[in-house]
Amino acid sequence: MASKAPPSNWQDLVAAKHHECEQKIPRDWLLSSDQLALADENPRLLDVDIPRRSGLLSEAELDLTENYTANQLLVKLASGQFSSLAVTTAFCKRAAIAQQFALERAKHLDEYLQREGKPIGPLHGLPISIKDSFCVEGVQTTIGYVAFLENEPAKTNSALVNMLLQLGAVLYVKTNIPQTMMTADSENNIFGRTRNPHNTTLTAGGSSGGEGALVAFRGSILGVGTDIAGSIRIPALCCGVYGFKPTSNRIPFGGQISGVDEGIPTLVPTAGPLAHSIADLKLLMSSVVADGQAWKYDSSAVAVPWQTIPSGSDASQSLTIGVLAEDEHFPLHPPVKRALDQAVEALVRAGHRIVRVNGDDEAQSVAYASRLAFQYFVYGPHKDHLAASGEPAVTSVAKAAEPMFSGPHPVQQGLGPFETIQALHVARQRVHDVWRQTWVDQKLDVILAPGAQNTAVGHDTYGWPPYTVIWNLLDYPACIIPFGRASKELDPEPMATGGDMQPDYHPDEVDGAPCAIQIITPRFQDEKCLWAADIIDRALAVYDKE
Amino acid sequence: MASKAPPSNWQDLVAAKHHECEQKIPRDWLLSSDQLALADENPRLLDVDIPRRSGLLSEAELDLTENYTANQLLVKLASGQFSSLAVTTAFCKRAAIAQQFALERAKHLDEYLQREGKPIGPLHGLPISIKDSFCVEGVQTTIGYVAFLENEPAKTNSALVNMLLQLGAVLYVKTNIPQTMMTADSENNIFGRTRNPHNTTLTAGGSSGGEGALVAFRGSILGVGTDIAGSIRIPALCCGVYGFKPTSNRIPFGGQISGVDEGIPTLVPTAGPLAHSIADLKLLMSSVVADGQAWKYDSSAVAVPWQTIPSGSDASQSLTIGVLAEDEHFPLHPPVKRALDQAVEALVRAGHRIVRVNGDDEAQSVAYASRLAFQYFVYGPHKDHLAASGEPAVTSVAKAAEPMFSGPHPVQQGLGPFETIQALHVARQRVHDVWRQTWVDQKLDVILAPGAQNTAVGHDTYGWPPYTVIWNLLDYPACIIPFGRASKELDPEPMATGGDMQPDYHPDEVDGAPCAIQIITPRFQDEKCLWAADIIDRALAVYDKE
Repeated sequence: MASKAPPSNWQDLVAAKHHECEQKIPRDWLLSSDQLALADENPRLLDVDIPRRSGLLSEAELDLTENYTANQLLVKLASGQFSSLAVTTAFCKRAAIAQQFALERAKHLDEYLQREGKPIGPLHGLPISIKDSFCVEGVQTTIGYVAFLENEPAKTNSALVNMLLQLGAVLYVKTNIPQTMMTADSENNIFGRTRNPHNTTLTAGGSSGGEGALVAFRGSILGVGTDIAGSIRIPALCCGVYGFKPTSNRIPFGGQISGVDEGIPTLVPTAGPLAHSIADLKLLMSSVVADGQAWKYDSSAVAVPWQTIPSGSDASQSLTIGVLAEDEHFPLHPPVKRALDQAVEALVRAGHRIVRVNGDDEAQSVAYASRLAFQYFVYGPHKDHLAASGEPAVTSVAKAAEPMFSGPHPVQQGLGPFETIQALHVARQRVHDVWRQTWVDQKLDVILAPGAQNTAVGHDTYGWPPYTVIWNLLDYPACIIPFGRASKELDPEPMATGGDMQPDYHPDEVDGAPCAIQIITPRFQDEKCLWAADIIDRALAVYDKE
Repeated sequence: MASKAPPSNWQDLVAAKHHECEQKIPRDWLLSSDQLALADENPRLLDVDIPRRSGLLSEAELDLTENYTANQLLVKLASGQFSSLAVTTAFCKRAAIAQQFALERAKHLDEYLQREGKPIGPLHGLPISIKDSFCVEGVQTTIGYVAFLENEPAKTNSALVNMLLQLGAVLYVKTNIPQTMMTADSENNIFGRTRNPHNTTLTAGGSSGGEGALVAFRGSILGVGTDIAGSIRIPALCCGVYGFKPTSNRIPFGGQISGVDEGIPTLVPTAGPLAHSIADLKLLMSSVVADGQAWKYDSSAVAVPWQTIPSGSDASQSLTIGVLAEDEHFPLHPPVKRALDQAVEALVRAGHRIVRVNGDDEAQSVAYASRLAFQYFVYGPHKDHLAASGEPAVTSVAKAAEPMFSGPHPVQQGLGPFETIQALHVARQRVHDVWRQTWVDQKLDVILAPGAQNTAVGHDTYGWPPYTVIWNLLDYPACIIPFGRASKELDPEPMATGGDMQPDYHPDEVDGAPCAIQIITPRFQDEKCLWAADIIDRALAVYDKE
């Protein structure tokens, strides 16, 4: 670092990065100012259908990016019916962030198939998008901190990046996140704000907001995000796509850039997929986990094979589903409540058994778990990466002052470090134990819960993530299934929640925004979670058609 | 506690406990003073064959306890050919610690089989011994601290105890441990010292020393110990039995009494079996892990099913075996070295590929890993349970002053708590990474290593456990296979190791003591570890016959 020029001011660093990024997009893939104006006229990008109207994608490319699941594309890639170059080009165009190395890789895979007569791996030729926190050799990892623009490009790949390449995937785009990665609004001073393609006046969610938006836009068929409080599931539910947070360390997490020091006891972040179907979530999980070789790429990853037929699955496919009660401290917006009620109705019709869970014990409440999780997040040492460059906090970061919850601290404040760690551990074990007892006593297969108290809401108003972070505290796998839409006709009454850190319900604002449900199983039952989510997803589809 | 009498002095508490324990042994099962004198004349209890000479066991009982594996006994218990009462009585006699509740349980199981015509579970009727640290409702758990004699009897069972009962096992005895559970000499001021039945002048090892001795004596066919630095494997290698330390949390560990506060980042203790064969180690593991239901008993346990055919196993059964180099700081005693060399010879003959592992990187050395592990053990807060009663430290505890290693501290001393935790974590990750790279680069199936630098040695001279604790630092499964014997004829030269905390080799002292090897796989590859250990054990048996 000694030989480097002294740090510029933060605005200059950002300007240089913008120029670098723009250079990576071929000039004839840029949208015209008229085309950009279309988005200004109507924020509902999916309805406006910019990709089709832009003329940048051929009919074949529109077909490639819109009409197949990742699993279906893989079959056509493996048979040579589609080339990886064509598929990757189409998604690169659609992502509008073409990167030459991705196309080189696609050509290489096409040549391999032609030469060897077989795919290079189970993800042969498939373009996969990844969150900015993953490192790719030669590419800078900023995670939205201007200070990190001073860093050298990554010298090594993240463990998962190495694995995806080994499995035959094409990596073609890194996607946006919030400054600090700890808000649900993917805005930072480098890349700006990721908007929701269903309605650009609404948040895309965060922290894997770039993934949520890009998958919803079909600029990606399969993406990988990370989740420590809801960062896969919040963008999924905001953008109306499927998202899965696995048990920690089933997908290798190592070698990412993070803003925090490792080793202090806290919640463990986990990597997982966002996609257009349960089948594609399963595709990513089963390909990476497979027969338990992830530990070879990352010593933190567990050598636990993927179970094709999950323990506890049952040929009858009749599930016992525990429905999480609404927490009085975090009342559900009417469209969220309606989606949950309709899901219950659909599941009863499909012959599943519904029971109510979480009773009187405070340790089992969403509010308590959320407070405990956030006490974990704030108790240790923290580095100020904003001060390092002098950049200002973005709005959602500035708003989320500590402590990030209301109500009493679960663990006494002002204890020494060791006493605090022990007290947090004891409190968390108690939460684990009451939940374990509930699963056993009620013979649950899965829990059905809202993913949030709200749908996507206006920028910088999302607030706390209590209905997602509870499952991080427990390290339980959790899957978001998009289901239904907010409707100002069906739910015309506004609702105030009170407080700055919970959004109010405004029927006009969120009209048409996707709704979602969340499916949860205990730790390490990732296979059962996706197996049950698939059954539930089909039941909801049948209900929708009736 | 307010209504209790004030604490007596520590000697009175111990005297009362002795009386209570003696009452539990039926009077006609007590050895006569003449019979006790036999042991004084010859410390090699297995050679003297006290059980046979005592006349307390019938021929049928001697047969039951000596000529079957746990797996074979289960077949006869399930068919009704042997009753659980007869089998349990025989082992109770042999353990000479009969407990009426165990016999009641055995009767109940026999009646169940007769009534229902089928076993109650996969461990139907089999008596299993457990380390004192496990809680059994109504029984006091002292873990060798006089201060804990003031505690009430346990109100709930440990998670594993509940599971074993559910699986049909009979629990009939809790076994001895060292004061503090952190030495290799199972001595405390309550129950005294556990001796090695091969030679009572030698240590039985620790901390699961009661298990090691009882299994070696065939007073138990299958026992459960715990291991955080070698506490299953050290008694196994000292007493010439098989012992397996699984990956943490595959066997539920919860609900035990421990002397330390939980939650501080450190090495994670793990429960596992001691037995007379690899098959019986597998029996305990596969019955408890089974299809991944242990989480229902203990929220810390992972819901990972037992793989009947382990990932990475191979029909050819030709293994690539990495042999751990002797660490110059911990030179091997000649009998240990001879056993290791013979094992390598046997494995080469059997067609396996042998490679040398751990090269020049200090992070991969046994000495470094051992120092790092012990820095973890000593850095946090510690409670003084000895001072609480005023009892003195036993010899091995008094001798093991901190720090429990020689050489530089891997992590700078005097850092604040958070900085220390982070620095330890970073150092440990480095050890993980260099080992991961070795497994991958050398395509290893297993590692073959000594279990210790020594065999069982004189009481209170065992010292440090570097060759076991390295695998706790890495959380790798590790299996002890007994192989060969120390011999003053074959290794007549004494060897000095230097220092108080490493035993010297005295040919006369350890003549005839069992030798052993250790088989290791990466985290979560417990199935592969036992699969490979079985192949290796057979190769050693063939070699022995040649």
